[in-house]
Amino acid sequence: MTDTTLPTPGSTERTTIRRIPEKTVNDRETGYAILDAGFVAHVSVVDDSGQPYVVPVGYARDGDRVLFHGSTGSRLFRGLAEGQPMCLTVTLLDGMVLARSTFESSMNYRGVMVLGSGSVLEGDDKDHALEVITEHLLPGRWSEARHPNNKELAATLVLALDLTEMSVKLSEGPPGDEEDDISRPVWAGVVPIVETFGEPQSAPDLVEPYPVPDYVLAWRRPLP
Amino acid sequence: MTDTTLPTPGSTERTTIRRIPEKTVNDRETGYAILDAGFVAHVSVVDDSGQPYVVPVGYARDGDRVLFHGSTGSRLFRGLAEGQPMCLTVTLLDGMVLARSTFESSMNYRGVMVLGSGSVLEGDDKDHALEVITEHLLPGRWSEARHPNNKELAATLVLALDLTEMSVKLSEGPPGDEEDDISRPVWAGVVPIVETFGEPQSAPDLVEPYPVPDYVLAWRRPLP
Repeated sequence: MTDTTLPTPGSTERTTIRRIPEKTVNDRETGYAILDAGFVAHVSVVDDSGQPYVVPVGYARDGDRVLFHGSTGSRLFRGLAEGQPMCLTVTLLDGMVLARSTFESSMNYRGVMVLGSGSVLEGDDKDHALEVITEHLLPGRWSEARHPNNKELAATLVLALDLTEMSVKLSEGPPGDEEDDISRPVWAGVVPIVETFGEPQSAPDLVEPYPVPDYVLAWRRPLP
Repeated sequence: MTDTTLPTPGSTERTTIRRIPEKTVNDRETGYAILDAGFVAHVSVVDDSGQPYVVPVGYARDGDRVLFHGSTGSRLFRGLAEGQPMCLTVTLLDGMVLARSTFESSMNYRGVMVLGSGSVLEGDDKDHALEVITEHLLPGRWSEARHPNNKELAATLVLALDLTEMSVKLSEGPPGDEEDDISRPVWAGVVPIVETFGEPQSAPDLVEPYPVPDYVLAWRRPLP
């Protein structure tokens, strides 16, 4: 359930998209669908010297927040755990756009940027979050894999970032050449980029020839 | 040509990988190959309030630096142009790793993180950079597309980030389950994730049925 009291994406000073504003999308549902389609987010936090770091994390959306985890031993994650200002961005690349001019040539993509501060989850919240993250990244796996023990839980930092302040950007469709360029005698169009799952590769140390589970075979998603 | 006087990746205090250090790679060639295989980098810069922003950019490697461009109207790019501390990260997702335990389950990926400050390119350097970026993202296209005119050049900010301080991380291979978990009666292994080009889609406003160029058809890359 979306909390309808949350601000519209792109409506705050910090999330107003000034560059190519016609690509901005103002509905949360589109942003949430983008988050649900991705696996990896890039998060940034700043150290004491003002240096930002950008690291990839696996994540999952859970209602009006994003969940992700990292190591308690990581400098970056300690900063996030302390509630330092952070940014989390998810970008799904959909295609190369070949306009007649290099200036109008670009990429089609779907993107979400979230600003805020993370909060550390503990106890039942932490257990729930680990299940949600596993079931987003590896749907079906939670019921078969061994769940984390206390030592593993202690080594894992689980964070939530509220989807309060966010922007959503969509770049799609054919090239938008200037009128003067359209007659240029060259092909123009879009070359889609598609991410797909390949053939599962069994671990070399399987003690018996267990078949690839149906839930893994079901991951082959339809083309976008 | 790699400048052999540059520091080894991961050798500075800020780029030493503490989390799962066995995944660190110390040779520049591996890092450069990762940069050459990617299309989108995530860059972060910090505003006056200490808030980091992470945005996706198309980029290309040019020797010992990374080139990318943005709009002169973008707040983020103005910060980058002023030489504020930045981070540029490229992540290539290669597969889902299904261990018998959720704790050891993860993703296989190749990643590069670069720290430094950008510098603005002008004149011939800028023209060269735009050709290098186009030829990395759309190989073959520079000779056919219309090059930027003065107005378009003025609207485009082109930045270079030296590959001086960087870290390189590789996560590959089968799951590394604890010995106690290996006998668990469940399939384990890796499900590869592959990014491929789909069927080119011609622009609806093509004035004649120009064929898809051979250089576009050649983009279909071999599986990793």
